[in-house]
Amino acid sequence: MDVDAVKQFLTGLQQAIVARLGGIDGRAFRRDEWSRPEGGGGVAQVLEDGNVFERAGVNFSHVHGWSLPPSASASRPELAGRSFQAMGVSLVLHPRNPYVPTVHMNVRFFAAEQDGAAPVWWFGGGMDLTPYYPFAEDARHFHRACREALAPHGADRYPRYKKWCDDYFYLRHRAEPRGIGGVFFDDLNQPDFAASFALTRGVGSQFLPAYLPILERRRGLAYGERERAFQAYRRGRYVEFNLVYDRGTLFGLQSGGRTEAILMSLPPRAEWRYDWKPEPGSPEEKLYTEFLVARDWAD
Amino acid sequence: MDVDAVKQFLTGLQQAIVARLGGIDGRAFRRDEWSRPEGGGGVAQVLEDGNVFERAGVNFSHVHGWSLPPSASASRPELAGRSFQAMGVSLVLHPRNPYVPTVHMNVRFFAAEQDGAAPVWWFGGGMDLTPYYPFAEDARHFHRACREALAPHGADRYPRYKKWCDDYFYLRHRAEPRGIGGVFFDDLNQPDFAASFALTRGVGSQFLPAYLPILERRRGLAYGERERAFQAYRRGRYVEFNLVYDRGTLFGLQSGGRTEAILMSLPPRAEWRYDWKPEPGSPEEKLYTEFLVARDWAD
Repeated sequence: MDVDAVKQFLTGLQQAIVARLGGIDGRAFRRDEWSRPEGGGGVAQVLEDGNVFERAGVNFSHVHGWSLPPSASASRPELAGRSFQAMGVSLVLHPRNPYVPTVHMNVRFFAAEQDGAAPVWWFGGGMDLTPYYPFAEDARHFHRACREALAPHGADRYPRYKKWCDDYFYLRHRAEPRGIGGVFFDDLNQPDFAASFALTRGVGSQFLPAYLPILERRRGLAYGERERAFQAYRRGRYVEFNLVYDRGTLFGLQSGGRTEAILMSLPPRAEWRYDWKPEPGSPEEKLYTEFLVARDWAD
Repeated sequence: MDVDAVKQFLTGLQQAIVARLGGIDGRAFRRDEWSRPEGGGGVAQVLEDGNVFERAGVNFSHVHGWSLPPSASASRPELAGRSFQAMGVSLVLHPRNPYVPTVHMNVRFFAAEQDGAAPVWWFGGGMDLTPYYPFAEDARHFHRACREALAPHGADRYPRYKKWCDDYFYLRHRAEPRGIGGVFFDDLNQPDFAASFALTRGVGSQFLPAYLPILERRRGLAYGERERAFQAYRRGRYVEFNLVYDRGTLFGLQSGGRTEAILMSLPPRAEWRYDWKPEPGSPEEKLYTEFLVARDWAD
């Protein structure tokens, strides 16, 4: 495995995305380098209160440690206690305009080592879209872009990773998906390092083409208090998912990552209302009935 | 053990608190009875967008089931799979005025049963205060009220339960307590049922005397956008604690409780800002340096 090549790809990807998003917003990202006492660190790049993005975080981190934390070894108990390194780029964009979806993308590499044993490594990643208002055109575009990124690696990848995404980004206590999904994969080490790395590069590099056309189409739409209120309410679900279920968040908090960088995925503002229901026939109701359901968007 | 007497106390406590708070606010609580398919149910009483309370929830629930969920048996693996019943009153008040603290109170009873074995039961509960602005007088009053409630049960109770509260309501990823604490106890079944029940009654009945004088003192203070923004920011910490750490919340979500009733503890609105720090010398900074630290308030 070529750890340096992975690191170079990830830092380059972060830079390309930050440059492009900063250009669109007109406000520059703030850049924070941080390190952790146990080893490693990262670069958090954040834009708050921008023209287009109310909050945007694009993180690179590379942490290592002497003993794998429980959230990472839960499904692979044989690795408990091994030394490890984890690196990745993770981003969440919360645009101000409620017609522009929130988006998340992550690509990561993990390796656990032990003297006298072959290293265990895998890639993971994916991207998923969380719209506030229902535009079928956007959902189709996003899923087709995901499918395209995976096509060179076999026609079965997209359906498998699409379903994995639907299963993962699901709020059990609400019986509700987080958004309209995308793709998600983990534990990828087959057929070999080169192919797994190529697939992961393909997903990361497809992020801008998957998201920017949607952003461009919706960012100029006029909105009012009603749309902002619904956006704030739906962002509450985003908070619930990230704090209750998200493995990346829990791994980060448990492994002594930098809290402010990890929790950059949280929205700038969220609201909760007791037992709220959308008005029958409204676009808000349509989001629930036609978009927040597992559904094939790419065809 | 007299389960009916516990239930009667709890429903009476909920009613007394709701009546008093509704009178203060001027708006009536909404009342929702709910039941769960696996057995039991509850009564959620909620006030939203009131004159005094931006969100107030006072819940009674009594659930039973055939098999104890993992969050409840984690520390007592011998009970895994036993049938159980759990009942309690739980409240969180989020006042609108940032000078009035958020408060939480809970009293609960748990019993796990199995054919051919003596039932295992215990009481738990407590109350804790989360101020946004630093008033030593309020912190002292609240802690003294807690101490008074426990005094008939031995002078060592308050210091033990005060420390337990400090330990429990702690955000490890922030290295920060949720608020200024209060008291917390769990697994209480000594010396016997009658004494454990009496202590629990004492804590529940002390809630209004502990909180109302603070509410009355602060509810008329004038505030502006700055105070509301800090309140929204600090409420983000409340969300983090409840979704990442709170056992009651996780137990409720895992045991199929009613999600909207469980998550009534969340604030109506919360905000996150990247790497925000209070201004040196400000009241917001004083909250961090003098109040969000483990400290003896009752003396």
